[in-house]
Amino acid sequence: MTKILLVQGANLSYLGKREPHIYGTTSAADLDMHLRSHSEHLGYDLDIFYTNVEGEAINRIYEATRAGTDGLVMNPAGFTYVGYALRDCVKAVGLPYIEVHISNVEVRGIRSVLSNVSVGTLTGFGLSGYEMALEAMLRLLEHESDF
Amino acid sequence: MTKILLVQGANLSYLGKREPHIYGTTSAADLDMHLRSHSEHLGYDLDIFYTNVEGEAINRIYEATRAGTDGLVMNPAGFTYVGYALRDCVKAVGLPYIEVHISNVEVRGIRSVLSNVSVGTLTGFGLSGYEMALEAMLRLLEHESDF
Amino acid sequence: MTKILLVQGANLSYLGKREPHIYGTTSAADLDMHLRSHSEHLGYDLDIFYTNVEGEAINRIYEATRAGTDGLVMNPAGFTYVGYALRDCVKAVGLPYIEVHISNVEVRGIRSVLSNVSVGTLTGFGLSGYEMALEAMLRLLEHESDF
Amino acid sequence: MTKILLVQGANLSYLGKREPHIYGTTSAADLDMHLRSHSEHLGYDLDIFYTNVEGEAINRIYEATRAGTDGLVMNPAGFTYVGYALRDCVKAVGLPYIEVHISNVEVRGIRSVLSNVSVGTLTGFGLSGYEMALEAMLRLLEHESDF
Amino acid sequence: MTKILLVQGANLSYLGKREPHIYGTTSAADLDMHLRSHSEHLGYDLDIFYTNVEGEAINRIYEATRAGTDGLVMNPAGFTYVGYALRDCVKAVGLPYIEVHISNVEVRGIRSVLSNVSVGTLTGFGLSGYEMALEAMLRLLEHESDF
Amino acid sequence: MTKILLVQGANLSYLGKREPHIYGTTSAADLDMHLRSHSEHLGYDLDIFYTNVEGEAINRIYEATRAGTDGLVMNPAGFTYVGYALRDCVKAVGLPYIEVHISNVEVRGIRSVLSNVSVGTLTGFGLSGYEMALEAMLRLLEHESDF
Amino acid sequence: MTKILLVQGANLSYLGKREPHIYGTTSAADLDMHLRSHSEHLGYDLDIFYTNVEGEAINRIYEATRAGTDGLVMNPAGFTYVGYALRDCVKAVGLPYIEVHISNVEVRGIRSVLSNVSVGTLTGFGLSGYEMALEAMLRLLEHESDF
Amino acid sequence: MTKILLVQGANLSYLGKREPHIYGTTSAADLDMHLRSHSEHLGYDLDIFYTNVEGEAINRIYEATRAGTDGLVMNPAGFTYVGYALRDCVKAVGLPYIEVHISNVEVRGIRSVLSNVSVGTLTGFGLSGYEMALEAMLRLLEHESDF
Amino acid sequence: MTKILLVQGANLSYLGKREPHIYGTTSAADLDMHLRSHSEHLGYDLDIFYTNVEGEAINRIYEATRAGTDGLVMNPAGFTYVGYALRDCVKAVGLPYIEVHISNVEVRGIRSVLSNVSVGTLTGFGLSGYEMALEAMLRLLEHESDF
Amino acid sequence: MTKILLVQGANLSYLGKREPHIYGTTSAADLDMHLRSHSEHLGYDLDIFYTNVEGEAINRIYEATRAGTDGLVMNPAGFTYVGYALRDCVKAVGLPYIEVHISNVEVRGIRSVLSNVSVGTLTGFGLSGYEMALEAMLRLLEHESDF
Amino acid sequence: MTKILLVQGANLSYLGKREPHIYGTTSAADLDMHLRSHSEHLGYDLDIFYTNVEGEAINRIYEATRAGTDGLVMNPAGFTYVGYALRDCVKAVGLPYIEVHISNVEVRGIRSVLSNVSVGTLTGFGLSGYEMALEAMLRLLEHESDF
Amino acid sequence: MTKILLVQGANLSYLGKREPHIYGTTSAADLDMHLRSHSEHLGYDLDIFYTNVEGEAINRIYEATRAGTDGLVMNPAGFTYVGYALRDCVKAVGLPYIEVHISNVEVRGIRSVLSNVSVGTLTGFGLSGYEMALEAMLRLLEHESDF
Repeated sequence: MTKILLVQGANLSYLGKREPHIYGTTSAADLDMHLRSHSEHLGYDLDIFYTNVEGEAINRIYEATRAGTDGLVMNPAGFTYVGYALRDCVKAVGLPYIEVHISNVEVRGIRSVLSNVSVGTLTGFGLSGYEMALEAMLRLLEHESDF
Repeated sequence: MTKILLVQGANLSYLGKREPHIYGTTSAADLDMHLRSHSEHLGYDLDIFYTNVEGEAINRIYEATRAGTDGLVMNPAGFTYVGYALRDCVKAVGLPYIEVHISNVEVRGIRSVLSNVSVGTLTGFGLSGYEMALEAMLRLLEHESDF
Repeated sequence: MTKILLVQGANLSYLGKREPHIYGTTSAADLDMHLRSHSEHLGYDLDIFYTNVEGEAINRIYEATRAGTDGLVMNPAGFTYVGYALRDCVKAVGLPYIEVHISNVEVRGIRSVLSNVSVGTLTGFGLSGYEMALEAMLRLLEHESDF
Repeated sequence: MTKILLVQGANLSYLGKREPHIYGTTSAADLDMHLRSHSEHLGYDLDIFYTNVEGEAINRIYEATRAGTDGLVMNPAGFTYVGYALRDCVKAVGLPYIEVHISNVEVRGIRSVLSNVSVGTLTGFGLSGYEMALEAMLRLLEHESDF
Repeated sequence: MTKILLVQGANLSYLGKREPHIYGTTSAADLDMHLRSHSEHLGYDLDIFYTNVEGEAINRIYEATRAGTDGLVMNPAGFTYVGYALRDCVKAVGLPYIEVHISNVEVRGIRSVLSNVSVGTLTGFGLSGYEMALEAMLRLLEHESDF
Repeated sequence: MTKILLVQGANLSYLGKREPHIYGTTSAADLDMHLRSHSEHLGYDLDIFYTNVEGEAINRIYEATRAGTDGLVMNPAGFTYVGYALRDCVKAVGLPYIEVHISNVEVRGIRSVLSNVSVGTLTGFGLSGYEMALEAMLRLLEHESDF
Repeated sequence: MTKILLVQGANLSYLGKREPHIYGTTSAADLDMHLRSHSEHLGYDLDIFYTNVEGEAINRIYEATRAGTDGLVMNPAGFTYVGYALRDCVKAVGLPYIEVHISNVEVRGIRSVLSNVSVGTLTGFGLSGYEMALEAMLRLLEHESDF
Repeated sequence: MTKILLVQGANLSYLGKREPHIYGTTSAADLDMHLRSHSEHLGYDLDIFYTNVEGEAINRIYEATRAGTDGLVMNPAGFTYVGYALRDCVKAVGLPYIEVHISNVEVRGIRSVLSNVSVGTLTGFGLSGYEMALEAMLRLLEHESDF
Repeated sequence: MTKILLVQGANLSYLGKREPHIYGTTSAADLDMHLRSHSEHLGYDLDIFYTNVEGEAINRIYEATRAGTDGLVMNPAGFTYVGYALRDCVKAVGLPYIEVHISNVEVRGIRSVLSNVSVGTLTGFGLSGYEMALEAMLRLLEHESDF
Repeated sequence: MTKILLVQGANLSYLGKREPHIYGTTSAADLDMHLRSHSEHLGYDLDIFYTNVEGEAINRIYEATRAGTDGLVMNPAGFTYVGYALRDCVKAVGLPYIEVHISNVEVRGIRSVLSNVSVGTLTGFGLSGYEMALEAMLRLLEHESDF
Repeated sequence: MTKILLVQGANLSYLGKREPHIYGTTSAADLDMHLRSHSEHLGYDLDIFYTNVEGEAINRIYEATRAGTDGLVMNPAGFTYVGYALRDCVKAVGLPYIEVHISNVEVRGIRSVLSNVSVGTLTGFGLSGYEMALEAMLRLLEHESDF
Repeated sequence: MTKILLVQGANLSYLGKREPHIYGTTSAADLDMHLRSHSEHLGYDLDIFYTNVEGEAINRIYEATRAGTDGLVMNPAGFTYVGYALRDCVKAVGLPYIEVHISNVEVRGIRSVLSNVSVGTLTGFGLSGYEMALEAMLRLLEHESDF
């Protein structure tokens, strides 16, 4: 069974309460429940990890890699700005990595230091961006055709 | 019926022959055929327009707006670098706009001058990025829930 | 009879519909009618040309020069940002050039690459800026005194 | 009766003697006489103030505001480069402000720190720029139509 | 027979009239006649294309590539500054490309965004630079020795 | 008889052994022999000077100027980056100067501090660039027509 | 009872031993004791938290917010330079935030990335800056008059 | 008796009328009365000086220094941006200097050129910042303990 | 007995698996064993600490300092880019600090924010750089002669 | 009789008391007396003007020009940083201008915005720099030979 | 026998007299004697070359390469800042190169333009850095294991 | 007898022939003769050294220092731009150094990398700047009063 690690970076545990005009009112718990039923529906193993500590995200990615994870989906959130150590970690493990941002970070002039080690990046699609990223990861891992 | 305009910017008509290690070997014609069957399948109206002239893209977006187009999906391609006039056009018409890049442009240090007027941006998902963008546009126009 | 070419750059044909809080609700057609009666009233020949393609603006300026135009008034609009080829064209023909911007572009941090080849520039006077520019051009061509 | 304050910034009292190939040979006194007859002709009250001290320009603008001035026309001249205190003053009083430069400052690579608090800016029209600015101010204050 | 496409970028059709102290008084028609006799003399097929529209240059390069052109000589002229789409096109077709500038653009602080996809660049040799470029292209295509 | 000084800057004496994938395998001695027969064939006096010391290049250019040299061809090579003293020397003597680079330095992001005092510059034509430069110098000195 | 969280960022636990010519010789324990008697005296609840891990500061601020804290006083110390995740956290919880620095960080050219989400900032008042900040927070929370 | 000079920089005399959403509605006269009663209450001599002319502020600081002033509190206001001469003056007299800004200038991206010669800086505490600064100055001059 | 703390920064625990063409195939465990026998051989106390969390490195350095460590050797690895808090910690404790990088970070354009608080830095010597650093630290602590 | 105006810019009236390790202990009065006897000895008319207000320096230079001053010597001091209005004044009057700085401003990284309108500049010669400047002005005005 | 060339760049011949608080009091002659006995002791051939002329360093490296030198150790010293020609030489010859700096150049904000062609760099170890570099070179040439 | 070394940097031997509108028509030989009679007249020992090689200037300064030179006057000329090695040499020997430039280099936007190790700098006084510099050096060495 395909195993995907979803890392939720700094401040995402506060989802639903944080600047709701930008991030909506769905809580982290609601999102998790939704994504778990998504993984059950599509038949893949989903491991969701929230942390506000960059080094813990790094620790978890190494553990997941040792445990046979096939792909990494991450919303670096608060680690987007200067997460160089996290970026080196992603590069080191060599897992395919898809980056998600809930809002269009470009509008606020933010540039992710991690996206140049990603396979691809999705910004501005709200919470549905997570599903889009997970499905894209599945397609990538299953070596589908170009479409 | 929902109407979506897909604009393919400069150099995309050469798809399949241009740097195939980056852009793959599928031709523009193959891609069009694929996307048209996608639109038929999902029941929306898809208008595909290729051009190497930035001003022609602008002309087309104004025409489509007058003709009642609901959303704009665009791969600005060669217009990514300095397409400020095109950006102002997208802002002027006020259509929801989703931006697609076949490759991960971030890796090559390219920054789109258009993405700050987009709803969202997708980079690095190859040709399947077009379907992802079109489906996201449909969800957006149909006012679905957060997921 | 004095002949003046008025070039309306990218996105100006959408006038009246585009961001009306900035550009007002007068349409391009209304503006043209107004300026034509202005030219009849003051007795000069006015040629108005709209285009979204920078190269077409260049083509037209060369044609007008060959046809004996005396002066150029232009709102570069979408060409304001990177219209270097257009700037070289204006420099090449040597016509006196007055630049108009409807809004105060300075407020939005925009700097025209064309204004350093202009005789003078007018920004922020709304649509009345066109009349101010045309009258200034007439004074310039008629070698009036300093005032 | 409409009251307009015209502030002439640093070095303008030397007009007519200063780099005449750029600024012409008309003296400050000549210009004043010309503008006073302009104000009599058009029936508005014109207060002209020359100073080489930025703080005196600020003092005068506060006084004029208290005395019921309707609009401010200013050639910041020597205050163009770093007149941040003057800019904050203009912003503070909230008077409509039109900026005039005799020469095309853009050609010499000068950028006014004040123009982003102006309604509009005029550069390069020589001394006739003052009349253009004063008339534009009158139109603005009289709430004319778009033209 | 070797086929070479010569693209003349924005403002070159005005050659001979444009700033003659920099570009000389030879017209575009004179230059063409001269280069055509050069191609007849050396026995190669020369296709000369003038345009002020960057996208038309791109269109033509794709057409010529499909039609079996062997090499591209171009004076990007007005496209020198921000012709990124044109640069991507040259890179996409993979034709050997030699860049020519009539004047020494370095003196005016201009840097071509296209020269890093060229085989080589020639600047400052006046109109004779075209012959030098065409002959260098012939040598390149004929796999001569190092000299 | 026309006298031309060819200066070969730092590291060119190692030609043929240095990064042969960029600079080829022809040695400095081979190149010299080739260029000397070129000068005999075309009937001009060629003085070739190799040095790794910027000040020695300066010394030689002053000597050659005093001895009646007509033109300077130089590959500044290692002096390309910061050879300001050499640039001032070339400007001081007033000799026509043509600059040659074997490879397309633009590709490696190198910008010559000397090329703004050159008549013209040639980059990327390999060793044949020397002959092109010498012939261009001869044409320049013989006041040929534009072609 | 008003509840205030005081966060002491990286390296502050070493207070009194670290560069005493800048930070003085009072230890963290002494400071805490002093501030606790201050809170008892003024009748508010003070929670002091020291950490060298940015993510732990984030965790604590979320916990405190859930537990009903009214205001945040923080000396970001080692998090001053690149604490973007911490800044987003402060913005997310929406607590009034006052920033304190013991020394005048401006003198050492340091700019806090957090101060633009603060209500106000105090730098250079030594350890007495903590009391000043806590009292200012109390005034702010008690909606006193302007003074 | 301790003597403190309070300098109020450019545009502060307009307090209460200037952008009241940022600076409140208390006038300069109200503030002065409040601070004078503060000085009487705490038993120190307070000299308040308003000016819009940077050089007058400099003159006053030199006079006050000669007259035995013990400390300087200043809101540089309009002199914040480029008051280098004022900064050199503060450095020259060697008086302890505390800087006050009513609003959080950091939010608007403003950086004071004077704060690196201050003992400490207070921003964003509204008018109560003046009292905080004056009390801090008194503590500083009375050589209190660390708290 | 001399006590040295060796801190291994973010991502070094993955040594041997991470980009082996750059970092080799020796694992962290192998390296530790090797260095421990080195310390036994030379008779000094070696404490090795791996962490992916910058704040934990800071915690450990403070603990070690309190426990009487004589010197610090560190490969900041993932903390190299923005480890300002770690840098302040090293400066605060005042221990002699030697910095090691396995690869030549300069080649990849990386600049350590920590090296300006080091006694010295070693880059590019592979794993043998650790021994070089430890021996240099021993010499430094034993106050040997210049050699 | 040759008339020279010496302008002493902001903060120079405090000479002798201001940072004496840089500027010495000679007072402004001592300096004046010394320079007056210098002017008497050499037989020229010396007018010394101190001011802390940039605009007053401008006023005085215009007055002196009208009164027939032959040359300007100035130590811009506090006006060195952003004295653009003063610079334009010096350019406007066209008097020969020699700039003096007591200390070597280059060491402190200061660059005068006025020195590019000076004939020459002297920095670092202490108070004797005034005599050097005045004598150089006399030589300049008396059209001496090159030496 | 392994042959190593040690190049001592500009100003190193003055060692022992130059800023002894940074570089110590050991003279160049003392250092040479010390290193020669080091080479005798370890059985390798050491060639030491001092020069203040960058081109002479280049000449010597080419000579040594032709003479069969195995490795290059260099303290570029005064060539550190802009020694681009020297850097190209090191790259051209392809010898393994180890760079040494006596002091920690990072502290003074200096960045070597040569270190990106080095195998590794050592800074801040005083004169003992030479021995460390030479021994590292020997290990490198003798293909030792990772340690 | 006081001994002064005068170093004339790159391109100064060409004095009188080089850009005479900037540097005049006096030759290097004329200048030398003039300065030698100056030294005889004032009774000091003057050693003049011309070189186009930066390293030779360094060599000479070390030799002169060993030979007991008291002061250094230098026109770095061509070494002005990037003479970092020369600057380090001047700093190393510790001789008082006065820098001379014949023209006002500031006008051409040139900034000397050497002037921050000088006692003082003179620019724009033509050849008379040498005498001014030499006399200032004599005063400096003779410990005269402030004037």
